[in-house]
Amino acid sequence: MPSSTAGQVIKCKAAVAWGAGEPLKIEEVEVAPPQASEVRIKVHYTALCHTDLYFWEAKGQTPLFPRILGHEAAGIIESVGEGVTDLKVGDTVLPVFTGECGECRHCKSEESNMCDLLRINTDRGVMINDGKSRFSINGKPIYHFLGTSTFSEYTVAHVGCVAKINPEAPLDKVCILSCGVSTGMGATLNVAKPKKGSTVAIFGLGGVGLAAAEGARIAGASRIIGIDLNSDRFEKAKLFGVTEFINPKDHEKPIQEVIAERTDGGVDSSIECTGNVKAMIQAFESCHDGWGVAVLVGVPHSDAVFATSPTHFLSERTLKGTFFGNYKPRSDLPGLVELYLDKKLELEKFITHEVSFANINKAFDYMIKGESLRCVINVIGD
Amino acid sequence: MPSSTAGQVIKCKAAVAWGAGEPLKIEEVEVAPPQASEVRIKVHYTALCHTDLYFWEAKGQTPLFPRILGHEAAGIIESVGEGVTDLKVGDTVLPVFTGECGECRHCKSEESNMCDLLRINTDRGVMINDGKSRFSINGKPIYHFLGTSTFSEYTVAHVGCVAKINPEAPLDKVCILSCGVSTGMGATLNVAKPKKGSTVAIFGLGGVGLAAAEGARIAGASRIIGIDLNSDRFEKAKLFGVTEFINPKDHEKPIQEVIAERTDGGVDSSIECTGNVKAMIQAFESCHDGWGVAVLVGVPHSDAVFATSPTHFLSERTLKGTFFGNYKPRSDLPGLVELYLDKKLELEKFITHEVSFANINKAFDYMIKGESLRCVINVIGD
Repeated sequence: MPSSTAGQVIKCKAAVAWGAGEPLKIEEVEVAPPQASEVRIKVHYTALCHTDLYFWEAKGQTPLFPRILGHEAAGIIESVGEGVTDLKVGDTVLPVFTGECGECRHCKSEESNMCDLLRINTDRGVMINDGKSRFSINGKPIYHFLGTSTFSEYTVAHVGCVAKINPEAPLDKVCILSCGVSTGMGATLNVAKPKKGSTVAIFGLGGVGLAAAEGARIAGASRIIGIDLNSDRFEKAKLFGVTEFINPKDHEKPIQEVIAERTDGGVDSSIECTGNVKAMIQAFESCHDGWGVAVLVGVPHSDAVFATSPTHFLSERTLKGTFFGNYKPRSDLPGLVELYLDKKLELEKFITHEVSFANINKAFDYMIKGESLRCVINVIGD
Repeated sequence: MPSSTAGQVIKCKAAVAWGAGEPLKIEEVEVAPPQASEVRIKVHYTALCHTDLYFWEAKGQTPLFPRILGHEAAGIIESVGEGVTDLKVGDTVLPVFTGECGECRHCKSEESNMCDLLRINTDRGVMINDGKSRFSINGKPIYHFLGTSTFSEYTVAHVGCVAKINPEAPLDKVCILSCGVSTGMGATLNVAKPKKGSTVAIFGLGGVGLAAAEGARIAGASRIIGIDLNSDRFEKAKLFGVTEFINPKDHEKPIQEVIAERTDGGVDSSIECTGNVKAMIQAFESCHDGWGVAVLVGVPHSDAVFATSPTHFLSERTLKGTFFGNYKPRSDLPGLVELYLDKKLELEKFITHEVSFANINKAFDYMIKGESLRCVINVIGD
């Protein structure tokens, strides 16, 4: 049954970023109906991720404002555009910042999730169907962000960027599966693939790193070594299965040597979640020869150079990278939701704060101060 | 039944390298009986590999002379030392420059072949059992090489460095499986693991590179792109399944771009067989995002640095290295011999020259002039 708003412009509240670093402002926006291959989603819960903060600060890229940020969220389909058959009104969904068209070489490859059509594009502020925005205020367009723009009561997304999930799932929890948690978990479970009883090093104990640790815990790693420059993070990390800690500041030796000494030659796998190229090199060189696998997750500066001796490769180490934990959004996210419902994946540990939509700027404050892992923003109210 | 020479010193001919770059001299040497965990082998055929040449020239390492070089060979067990039960007199074997003790973490790992006890050691000129040589001339010791020293009618090796193979195998052919051919084949079949119908790039079309191509041919690759600075190598390479050729000298663009244009974004896998660090970087960056795998085989200078943008990893490329094609010598070489006997692996193509033992220096000449792929040396005579 189509909703009463189908085909209509919806007026609703959205948190608009008007300029770099300026507090978001809750505005009344118009949300146009979804076009071909698009759906309109009523957002229930959204969460703040570092990528939102990064593009809000707009220090390292071309600023694009006014813009509606937000890309971790869960909601319900309000209406669907022409030709959409995979999703219907009332479906419970997670919008995702990258997509799965199902037709390209990447989507058809077992290994890749880097869809040619819907791969993340941080510069694009419009929908691909017509190159225009679905958001406006008094007729003036407001830019999209990552094809999700979930800091809005209603948003429009390409059907390939929307995962249909179990309607039993609590949306205030599973909303955080849209980005960072899945990225870290997948880096471990899909790419490093540690064996039961193996040793895993996690570089960086922020949200993604803790999710990587959670993946190692789920995989049955016997030792999970957390490495971070901030020792305050160690206590919290224990909840995610981290069994021991190294703060590089406490050691004069290169951290590779410290790890090699503690692990009889190196860890079986390591996951780099900081984006710092020095840590990437350390993570790789900390792996054991013969079988060690390092996985890069953190996004580096564009001019960073990874440099190491090729002999580390020739002694049978492997270096891989991952994007969104190698999960195909539509195919794989429903399974992660089930993992949560089966109580194998513990999402509650990641959610340190919850705020009302009106208080969305507090979520930014918590993140800037380093107080939060994930702050969930309640968009539908009580 | 023990042989009549068991337990005795054997006097026989060996080609001795007396100094760096000096022609080998056929001398009468004494070969002591094998000690605990050792076997003595009557060498039937041996072949010359670049590693022999490298240590004979002794330009890049501490010279160790007088020494008996040689590490690609096939022969028959003449006698066994104390406690040896895995091999017996009369067994047909391939001595190998690296070993498999069967007990260490590497031998017990499914992935690794880098045995802790018997891993290649190019500096050691003695047996590990007593730290002494089994070779002497008038009581003066002659150094071993790689634990194999196959440029001798008889040699002594650790039992962990000797693969027992099918006695039906023609030793003048399978002798070349002890090193380069297996290294290249294994880099493709065991590490890159190209799928049927996939695209493979081979950097460097020497013996190892052609063996990597042969592996790609056996795996059913649909396109095998050979890259070499010497276009004379292209005709020969066709025999090994190479379907197209690129000489970087013919292009102004980086070779990565040339390959990306020809392959809709990059090859599915690439194998680097030159040891040149620039080629290593090219091989890696020539892989397709999402699923591309590059494998480093060639051994670089000790001060070489592999440098690339980490974004190439983050877009889901994999970089691995291999040692001896990841084959476990004792466990896996018998299977390669069977692959040859089943006519799936074509060894004859690699053997361009054959010389008598007395003419062993000609094998060096052929290699230095770049005329040979493999020159087999007939040690037993007609």
